[in-house]
Amino acid sequence: MPSFHPPLRTLMGPGPSDVHPRVLAAMAQPTIGHLDPAFVGLMDDIKDLLRRAFKTRNAVTFPVSGPGSVGMEACFVNLVEPGDTVIVCRNGVFGGRMKENVERCGASAVVIDDPWTRAVDPQRLEDALKAHPQARIVAFVMAETSTGALSDARTLVDIAHRHGALAIVDAVTALGGVELDVDAWDIDAIYSGTQKCLSCPPGLAPVSFNERALAKVRARKTPVHSWFLDLNLVLGYWAGEARRSYHHTAPINALYGLHEALVMLHEEGLEAAWARHALHHRALRAGAEALGLELLGADGERLPQLNVIGIPPGIDDARVRQTLLADFDLEIGAGLGEFAGKAWRVGLMGQSASRRHVLTCLVALASALAAQGRTVNREAALAAEQAIYG
Amino acid sequence: MPSFHPPLRTLMGPGPSDVHPRVLAAMAQPTIGHLDPAFVGLMDDIKDLLRRAFKTRNAVTFPVSGPGSVGMEACFVNLVEPGDTVIVCRNGVFGGRMKENVERCGASAVVIDDPWTRAVDPQRLEDALKAHPQARIVAFVMAETSTGALSDARTLVDIAHRHGALAIVDAVTALGGVELDVDAWDIDAIYSGTQKCLSCPPGLAPVSFNERALAKVRARKTPVHSWFLDLNLVLGYWAGEARRSYHHTAPINALYGLHEALVMLHEEGLEAAWARHALHHRALRAGAEALGLELLGADGERLPQLNVIGIPPGIDDARVRQTLLADFDLEIGAGLGEFAGKAWRVGLMGQSASRRHVLTCLVALASALAAQGRTVNREAALAAEQAIYG
Repeated sequence: MPSFHPPLRTLMGPGPSDVHPRVLAAMAQPTIGHLDPAFVGLMDDIKDLLRRAFKTRNAVTFPVSGPGSVGMEACFVNLVEPGDTVIVCRNGVFGGRMKENVERCGASAVVIDDPWTRAVDPQRLEDALKAHPQARIVAFVMAETSTGALSDARTLVDIAHRHGALAIVDAVTALGGVELDVDAWDIDAIYSGTQKCLSCPPGLAPVSFNERALAKVRARKTPVHSWFLDLNLVLGYWAGEARRSYHHTAPINALYGLHEALVMLHEEGLEAAWARHALHHRALRAGAEALGLELLGADGERLPQLNVIGIPPGIDDARVRQTLLADFDLEIGAGLGEFAGKAWRVGLMGQSASRRHVLTCLVALASALAAQGRTVNREAALAAEQAIYG
Repeated sequence: MPSFHPPLRTLMGPGPSDVHPRVLAAMAQPTIGHLDPAFVGLMDDIKDLLRRAFKTRNAVTFPVSGPGSVGMEACFVNLVEPGDTVIVCRNGVFGGRMKENVERCGASAVVIDDPWTRAVDPQRLEDALKAHPQARIVAFVMAETSTGALSDARTLVDIAHRHGALAIVDAVTALGGVELDVDAWDIDAIYSGTQKCLSCPPGLAPVSFNERALAKVRARKTPVHSWFLDLNLVLGYWAGEARRSYHHTAPINALYGLHEALVMLHEEGLEAAWARHALHHRALRAGAEALGLELLGADGERLPQLNVIGIPPGIDDARVRQTLLADFDLEIGAGLGEFAGKAWRVGLMGQSASRRHVLTCLVALASALAAQGRTVNREAALAAEQAIYG
């Protein structure tokens, strides 16, 4: 049984994104104990760096030991109690997953559906809260990884609060890629993942809870279903001040990697990282349109870090992705849910938001489309891309 | 904000154990996508290697994307339904955690307590099953990390089956360190962790379910509380044959590491690894006794990979551990629960089961005890150790 050596890919799917060698090297450092004084110092640094990334002073800000879906579950199992009514704004796959979470908590989900690729409509949320005044929680996906839609988190949170509801925000794909300000926008509970715009390997889910959210957790009448995710227990380890108590064994080496990625984000500057994602998105879009491809979605609602490109009629989706992988070692994402076979998802996340990535993707797509007999003007695509960078 | 560089420790606590450079290097390889054909091949290899480590042909054998506690929760949330009665054998901290899991599933836990450091008593299990004929599940910890007790899994599973109950076995510390044969012993559901005798960083929980267990999951009348851990959903990704469906994003680089660690275990041979743990345990015990220290527990019930050493009267526990860490970069474990301040837990797990580790620990303990005024014969300890190796 031989050792495994992965192919060297260029990752432009919906995550994981390319991981910088600094982060890979950090993870290969020797393991230490999860109660080692040196590790406890690392935990404090990670919490501090996450607060900067989320733009929050929330004391309870830490990475859950699991992938982004576990971050979602951590928010729902702690905040939702049996019998609660939760308004779930659904404009893609991950809103649907929120509904699943709500129902498994024994609560009722009132789902507001918005068209795929579109932002969540604030007016519909307002109407739903009026129609369901008993709702105490609103949940939505700020950056829908399945559709590329960016919703206006600040406005949605504000509406929730005006109706006395807390807001749970999915920022799995948002964090580090677009403007996000947890404190200024007064977000109550938020979760993210590491394998998107933070460019770590998957496996950790940064979360943050404000005092309003923690008060709801403390006031629960029923125990949290999950022992592992029960905030009251986890916090003894992650938020213990004088002495940390053992809860579970944290994924030490993954946390080395997250620390290094957050240091890199801090070095670049959060606003600079947002601007970088926006720049390369414009270049990719200009180039893709010059190839005759269309970015789905509406102006002002497109995520720079997740570009949903309609698959032209007559083009074989799977064959294109196979060509990209075989000839260019390039991964892009297939469509998910409604978009299976109808759209590609091209990520420009974290380290994958670079001119090298934009160029590789445009040339590779041009090649794959030409291989299926479509006339494409590669030169025009490169000129359009170049015009953006100036 | 500088990069983090961990101190170079020798890990002889209750896990994590020392990680081999091959495993660290494997984790630093470039990340690929969780649906990449190359990654799908890696998943198949990992499942195959885990089956060899567990000694099972169970189709459903895979690593859950979380630490060992999540492996525990995965077994309980899938197998236990509200209203069920579960017999929990408790002879340490982790049996107590099982009880917590049972109750959070809305079921009743009948707890049989055995003394700390002692194996679970088969007769008491038999009696409990007679007294609670409605019980359909028995759960116990085969290798109690808090007490160093090894229980007779084969016998306990057999008793459970004779009373029509399934057996859930905690093998977090057992796997790779002591004899374990899932198929021959007919274990229904088992979970483990990577940071013990497999010598990976923490963060993954290998599990295996036999057909009897899967039938109970399929026959559930209520949905599994956890979306993330619902076997019906996870298996679409881990057990899908023709095409894997997206469920969550697996921790790619951690899985590189697990694969390499399992390849190393396979190279050594499972039986050879068990024998190696036993050998170094005998040497550590001989040396510790020559230092005037006592291994708690009863003959035939002590785990080779987790040695619980009584703290002699008048010795300051915390100061000893600080001395070991400061002067020898050596981590051993504090006592947990009842044993806090009363015992040390010395791990000889995976890569930490070596003569180098035994020697470091004996010399360091001799030094720390001498620093507190205790007369110790270091030479005698080294001679006793040498006698075992011959």
